[in-house]
Amino acid sequence: TVDGGKLWADILETARFGATPKGGIRRLTLTEEDRQVRDWFVRTCEALGCVVTFDSMGNQFARRAGTNPSLPPITMGSHLDTQPTGGKFDGIVGVLGGLAVLRALHESGRETRHPVELINWTNEEGSRFAPAMLSSGVFAGVFTEEEALAKTDRDGVRFEDALVGIGYRGAERCGDHPVAAYFELHIEQGPILEAERKTIGVVTGVQGMRWYEVTVIGRDGHAGATPMALRADALVGTAKLIEAVQSIALKHAPGAVGTVGLLENRPNSRNVVPGEVFFSVDLRDPDDAVIVRMEEAFRATAAQVASESGLEITIELVWDSPAVRFDPTCIDAVRRAADSFAYPARDIVSGAGHDAVYMAGVTPTTMIFIPCAGGVSHNEEESAETDDVTAGANVLLRAVLDADER
Amino acid sequence: TVDGGKLWADILETARFGATPKGGIRRLTLTEEDRQVRDWFVRTCEALGCVVTFDSMGNQFARRAGTNPSLPPITMGSHLDTQPTGGKFDGIVGVLGGLAVLRALHESGRETRHPVELINWTNEEGSRFAPAMLSSGVFAGVFTEEEALAKTDRDGVRFEDALVGIGYRGAERCGDHPVAAYFELHIEQGPILEAERKTIGVVTGVQGMRWYEVTVIGRDGHAGATPMALRADALVGTAKLIEAVQSIALKHAPGAVGTVGLLENRPNSRNVVPGEVFFSVDLRDPDDAVIVRMEEAFRATAAQVASESGLEITIELVWDSPAVRFDPTCIDAVRRAADSFAYPARDIVSGAGHDAVYMAGVTPTTMIFIPCAGGVSHNEEESAETDDVTAGANVLLRAVLDADER
Ligand SMILES: NC(=O)NCCC(=O)O
Ligand SMILES: NC(=O)NCCC(=O)O
Repeated sequence: TVDGGKLWADILETARFGATPKGGIRRLTLTEEDRQVRDWFVRTCEALGCVVTFDSMGNQFARRAGTNPSLPPITMGSHLDTQPTGGKFDGIVGVLGGLAVLRALHESGRETRHPVELINWTNEEGSRFAPAMLSSGVFAGVFTEEEALAKTDRDGVRFEDALVGIGYRGAERCGDHPVAAYFELHIEQGPILEAERKTIGVVTGVQGMRWYEVTVIGRDGHAGATPMALRADALVGTAKLIEAVQSIALKHAPGAVGTVGLLENRPNSRNVVPGEVFFSVDLRDPDDAVIVRMEEAFRATAAQVASESGLEITIELVWDSPAVRFDPTCIDAVRRAADSFAYPARDIVSGAGHDAVYMAGVTPTTMIFIPCAGGVSHNEEESAETDDVTAGANVLLRAVLDADER
Repeated sequence: TVDGGKLWADILETARFGATPKGGIRRLTLTEEDRQVRDWFVRTCEALGCVVTFDSMGNQFARRAGTNPSLPPITMGSHLDTQPTGGKFDGIVGVLGGLAVLRALHESGRETRHPVELINWTNEEGSRFAPAMLSSGVFAGVFTEEEALAKTDRDGVRFEDALVGIGYRGAERCGDHPVAAYFELHIEQGPILEAERKTIGVVTGVQGMRWYEVTVIGRDGHAGATPMALRADALVGTAKLIEAVQSIALKHAPGAVGTVGLLENRPNSRNVVPGEVFFSVDLRDPDDAVIVRMEEAFRATAAQVASESGLEITIELVWDSPAVRFDPTCIDAVRRAADSFAYPARDIVSGAGHDAVYMAGVTPTTMIFIPCAGGVSHNEEESAETDDVTAGANVLLRAVLDADER
């Protein structure tokens, strides 16, 4: 089993990099705070006898040698970047839980046939650079490295420049890295495990998700002197579309979700009728066909708003991540591991995207969930129990050893 | 009469300070661009034999001496600051039109009993620092200088620091400056004069206006893993309030207007359910009682949205500028001046706020409007005809001389 105390101490220690006054973390990918936690990752893994490298997308790999040099590594991983107002657990539990596994192997002198490798993926959150899971996506061949490097944040900074800027653009081409299996430990980020008092979620797959960028163009006008009838108010049109996303999600399927998370209003002045709004839409459901129907409904509403208001509305699909089912053998290994510790467990489908989504395309993959308080995530108040974090890492350890023995 | 060609050339020359690619101006108050145009104002007025000073709020005064040193000045003025995506005429026509008057007096050697003074007011737009007409408000005793200096922009920069930063915090205490009358030339910023083919608007008053700051507090959540039923989405609540502002304005009176111009969404990340939104509301009507009823309706809607959604909504009234009627004698002087040139004219009430609103509280005041294309203002495409600008400045000249002779 892992050392739960050391794991918890690692969580608290790394939470300093980008700590916010409200007890959360602001550690956007490829920022100075991200560099700090990456440097910590290198130091800490090297102290456990691992060789640490990084690839051309900045993904970090900490490798513990196996007894059979010809076998590819069993991998574990997640991410250390956070949302602008993120918590101390999202992604972090997966990386530091993997570190606890490496530590347990190291301190017990346990040998494995395969190398065991821990991965810290770059830009999982997709908050600074859209879309999410960008670098595991390049690793898996879903995106080209060229398109990923050319992504820009909302200030126009290129991904490549930010990556070079923190010194983590590596020589190994992203994806040129054989793997035998991939396991990812994560907090659920939803309310189910806590509500049902389960310690372990045996993740069978991840729901489908699509991201859109919407631009609404009207006409700047004077807030005092432009009669209501002569306005083309881009923000009023946007308000109708925000409400449409909400009602479409509520209507189309019991579990469907829809969110407008990012919005930029222009020129954003109190006495100017807004002439342009840019916003994002996030639509998800476990059934990809439901997402298609939600998109159709949203496009129909947008066309109607445009024709009624004289606004010009463009909708661009910028990310499409279809629903994924994980590898049955890996799922089974997690289920058996949970049983072996007698942890209460249930099968679960992930509502959030994870690097495991793209890894599932190139190697046998699955995930392990643990509960988080109130199901709250992407929030500075995100919280998880020490015992659950330890339990998750124990299951990760056992599943990795199981995969090594197969 | 004024030299219309020189006046137009001044408009084009000053439009360089903060010029935007789309042909507009971005010259937010107390920025480097504002400093540049202020320096130009000093140079140009001094070349016409004026003495140029500025007060503790940065208001600039260009004074042409009169024959009777004991008389206070007849003043003209407006502002040279603009919206983030402003045009070349809003405010600017008033200042440069006043400059054309000074030039006409200077070049003709015409003597006046009163000094004639041109004022460039600081922060009329209210875009960088709310509210609008801040420094004429201090001049007129509506705001204290202390509260004005302590205002901050959306980045937290204090008004006082910005003023000192561009070198325009003067020694004369704002308001310690006797005036005999105030005339302000301005583009209409609305569609009426153009639609009725009138050259001159004889402005009889300005409608009432109130600004509010609204904060909607919900709970940050994961866009994929938070079920719709468990969300407290501050942006969805805000969307309802934006629509409410629109429908309240449409419903309460034929001429009423309501605008949400500024909106800040937090944390503003594509996959985070927004936990907090800050936005402005602008409500206006020529009848102050209508504004009170609109406010009541808005507060009622907000209370309902809050109770239905679990969001916390606070509404703060941050600016209240009641409807103003201008001085009958000044209005008459403008009407006679327009008639003397045979310019087609009509009475009009201003939908926009102007420094004349606060000056009306301390001295006989009125305004002169000229048409602008399509009534479009607070827009980079704002445009006016050379002949109309010249006509407006001619009326200003005649009205000033009329006041001087009374
Ligand atoms: N786990 C996580 O929060 N990932 C962000 C990607 C997503 O939006 O689901
Ligand atoms: N003239 C003008 O645009 N002033 C800004 C103040 C207002 O919002 O009306």
